[in-house]
Amino acid sequence: MAKNIPVSPLAPERFPDLPVIAGVEFATVAAGVRYPGRTDVMLTRLAPGSVVAGVFTRSATRSANVLDCQAKIGGDGDAGAAIIVNSGNSNAFTGKAGEESVAAICAEVAKRLDLPATRVFTSSTGVIGERLPHDRITAKVDELAGALSDGGAEAAARAIMTTDTFPKGCAREIELGGQTVKVMGFAKGSGMIAPDMATMLVYMFTDVKISRSALQAITSEASDATFNRITVDSDTSTSDTLLFGATGASGVEYDALDPVGRAAFGKAVHEVMQDLAFQVVRDGEGATKFVAVSVTGAKTDADADLVAKAIANSPLIKTAIAGEDPNWGRVVMAVGKSGAVADRDTLSIRFGDILVAENGWVAPSYKEDDGAAYMKREEIEINVDLGIGTGAGQMWTCDLTHGYISINADYRS
Amino acid sequence: MAKNIPVSPLAPERFPDLPVIAGVEFATVAAGVRYPGRTDVMLTRLAPGSVVAGVFTRSATRSANVLDCQAKIGGDGDAGAAIIVNSGNSNAFTGKAGEESVAAICAEVAKRLDLPATRVFTSSTGVIGERLPHDRITAKVDELAGALSDGGAEAAARAIMTTDTFPKGCAREIELGGQTVKVMGFAKGSGMIAPDMATMLVYMFTDVKISRSALQAITSEASDATFNRITVDSDTSTSDTLLFGATGASGVEYDALDPVGRAAFGKAVHEVMQDLAFQVVRDGEGATKFVAVSVTGAKTDADADLVAKAIANSPLIKTAIAGEDPNWGRVVMAVGKSGAVADRDTLSIRFGDILVAENGWVAPSYKEDDGAAYMKREEIEINVDLGIGTGAGQMWTCDLTHGYISINADYRS
Repeated sequence: MAKNIPVSPLAPERFPDLPVIAGVEFATVAAGVRYPGRTDVMLTRLAPGSVVAGVFTRSATRSANVLDCQAKIGGDGDAGAAIIVNSGNSNAFTGKAGEESVAAICAEVAKRLDLPATRVFTSSTGVIGERLPHDRITAKVDELAGALSDGGAEAAARAIMTTDTFPKGCAREIELGGQTVKVMGFAKGSGMIAPDMATMLVYMFTDVKISRSALQAITSEASDATFNRITVDSDTSTSDTLLFGATGASGVEYDALDPVGRAAFGKAVHEVMQDLAFQVVRDGEGATKFVAVSVTGAKTDADADLVAKAIANSPLIKTAIAGEDPNWGRVVMAVGKSGAVADRDTLSIRFGDILVAENGWVAPSYKEDDGAAYMKREEIEINVDLGIGTGAGQMWTCDLTHGYISINADYRS
Repeated sequence: MAKNIPVSPLAPERFPDLPVIAGVEFATVAAGVRYPGRTDVMLTRLAPGSVVAGVFTRSATRSANVLDCQAKIGGDGDAGAAIIVNSGNSNAFTGKAGEESVAAICAEVAKRLDLPATRVFTSSTGVIGERLPHDRITAKVDELAGALSDGGAEAAARAIMTTDTFPKGCAREIELGGQTVKVMGFAKGSGMIAPDMATMLVYMFTDVKISRSALQAITSEASDATFNRITVDSDTSTSDTLLFGATGASGVEYDALDPVGRAAFGKAVHEVMQDLAFQVVRDGEGATKFVAVSVTGAKTDADADLVAKAIANSPLIKTAIAGEDPNWGRVVMAVGKSGAVADRDTLSIRFGDILVAENGWVAPSYKEDDGAAYMKREEIEINVDLGIGTGAGQMWTCDLTHGYISINADYRS
C-alpha cells in the first residue's frame, strides 16, 4: 500500500449505512497477502437461486481472474454463488501461475461452501507481475466461511482497498408493488495504477428476483453511463471488474413489474453506480477538484463522447483546473484535437452557467474575474455546445496535481 | 512568456552553426506584441523561383493563420515568397478578427516585398483568444524588410520562442552530383500549451531545385516519421505549422538526380526534422528524461503505432520514468489498453537491452537492480515486441514531472 497518502479532500463525510440484503453474506480476514496489519481478503456468499451479472476491463492484457470471471459469468445455476477478492497482489501478468492461483482459490471456496467451482468468482488487486501467494488465501477460506454474516459490507469495502484513501459504498431502497427492494454496492479505485494497482472493482447486490439476462442488460447499460464515463488519468487497469448479484429474496419479480416499476429499479441501479463512480473520481490520486464535463450539440452522441473524453483526459485542462485558472483556450484546444466534427464559430463554452466563449471568440459578456471566482469551487462544470447537431455526452474526472506526480513518481513498493 | 522556467536539463550545449542558404534571408524585430524587451517577430524572404511545401495541425479549431497557409500552400509562383511569424499571441479562436489580422499582415508584407499576398505565409504563437494587435506588426514590416540578411537564422529561431527554454536549430550539407546542397531548419515548441501556447512551429530551407509537389511529398513523409511521432502531453495545438522553402539556388536539380541522390536528399531532410523533433521533446515542459518507445512484432504498423502512442502518452509510465522506477507492469497495462491486438504470452518488454518480461511474466533473467540502474539514465528506451506479426512503430516522449504541473497549473499570463 502506498505510504501515508492523506484522505482525499473530496471524500464524503462518512461511509453510508448499507442495508442487509437477504441472501448476501460477507466475511473478511487479514491473510497477509502483502499488507501487514489489515484485512486484505473478503468473501461474499450469495444464497441458492441468485444470479450474477458482470462487466470487465477490455484490456488485452487482462488478469487471470478477469478471464476466469468472463468464462463463468454467462452461466446460470441454482446453487448460489461466491465472490472472493484479495488486495495486495493483482495476479496480473503472472503467466500460467496466475491461472493456477485462480483455480486453487476457486476450488477451496467451492469445496468449503459446497458450490460448483463455476459459481465462484475472484478478483485480485494490487502489485502486478508478482506471483499471487494464494496459499495464504486458501488457508483462510475455512475461517472466512465460518465468519460469514449478513452485515459486514463496510468491512468488505475496506478489505479490498489499495491506494484508496476512503472506502466507497452506496445503497437505495425503493418500493415496488408494495414491497421494498434494495440495491447496494461498494467499490474501490483511485486511479488505474500499477504497481499498487488502483484497479476499479465494484460489487453490487439486490434482492429483486430477476433473470440473469435482464440483470446483465441493466448492468451493462448502467455501467456504460457511469463507470465507463469516469477517468482519473486515462490509464486502464488490467483487472477492472464489476459483479452484480441478485438473490431474489424480496420476492419482487422484475419480469412481473410494469414499465414504471422496471424503470424505478433501473434508476436505483443507475444511482448507486453513479454515486460509486463519483466516489472513485473523488478519490482520484491527488484530486482536489471534481470535474463534470458535458457536451451537447454534437453531430452524433459518439462525437460528443470524443469531445468529452478529450477534455476530461487533457493534461493541460486538468492542470489548469488544479491551478484554478479559467483557461477556456485549453478547452478550445481539446475540442479541436478530439477528432469530432466541430466548427470554431458555432462552438460555445460555459464554466457552470458562465458563458465564456461563443461565435469563435470570447463572449462579450464574459469577465475574467467571474471565471476566476468560479474556478475556486470544489466542483467544476465544463459545458460545451458544439452547435451542430443533437449528440450529447458526459464525462467526470478530477484535476491533475502535484499530488498525482508524488503518488506515482515518488514511491514504489 | 512563462516566468523564469529554467533551461531544460536535456538542452543541447549550444545552438548549432546554421549555414547561409542562397536565396533565403531573415530579419527580426521587437514589436511588443506581448513580451517586453525581446524580439517577437521574424520575417523570412525566399527569392523568386522558390517553392514552399507545408504540413499543418489537424485540429478542428485551427487558427486563422493555419487556415490561410493551407489555402495558399498548393500555389506555385515565380515571384518568391515570404514567411512572417510572431510570438506572444496565437491569433487562435479570435473569430473574424483573426482573419482580418492575417489579411492585414499579409497585405503589408506583400506590398513592401513586392509579392502577391498569396505568397505570404504567416504563423502566430502565444496566448489564445485575445485579438492579435497586428498593427504593432504591420508597423514594423518596413524595418524588417530593410534588415533582411542571409544570416540571422538563430535570431529568427529565438524570436519565435514562447515557453521554450532554448532555441532549436539543425542543418545538414550533402554532396549531390559534385555540388553541395544544404538543408537547414529551426523550430519552437515545448508542449502543446495554451495560453502561452507552446505550439510547434518549424521552418526549413534548402537550396535544391525541386518541384513543389516533390518537396511536399518529401515533407509529408519525413514529418510523419518525426514530428508526428513525438508527444509531450498528448495535447495538440491549434496552430502547429511546418513550412519548407526550396530556393533552387544550388543549381542541383532534384528531378535530375539518380535514386541514390534522391535518397540522400530525403535522408538529410529526415535527419534535420528528427533532430528538431527530438529537441522539442528535450524541451518538453518539466522534462528530465528523453524516452524512445519502439514497438515491433505487431499485427500491423497501425497496431504498433497504437501501442507506441499508448505507452508514450501514459501518465503512469511517464511518472514512473520521472521517479526512475523500472515499472514494467505499467507498460503491460498500456499495451493492454491500446486497442491493438496483443497476447499476454507472446509479449516481451525490454528497457534498453535488458529483457524485463516475456512469456506472460517477468523474465527469469531480470534483476530489479539492473532495471533500477538503467532508469537512472537521461535517455530511456522502452522496447516492446508483441510477438504476433511484423508491424513496427516508434514514438519519442519525455517524462511527466512536478515541473510540468508547476508550469501548467501555477501560472497564467
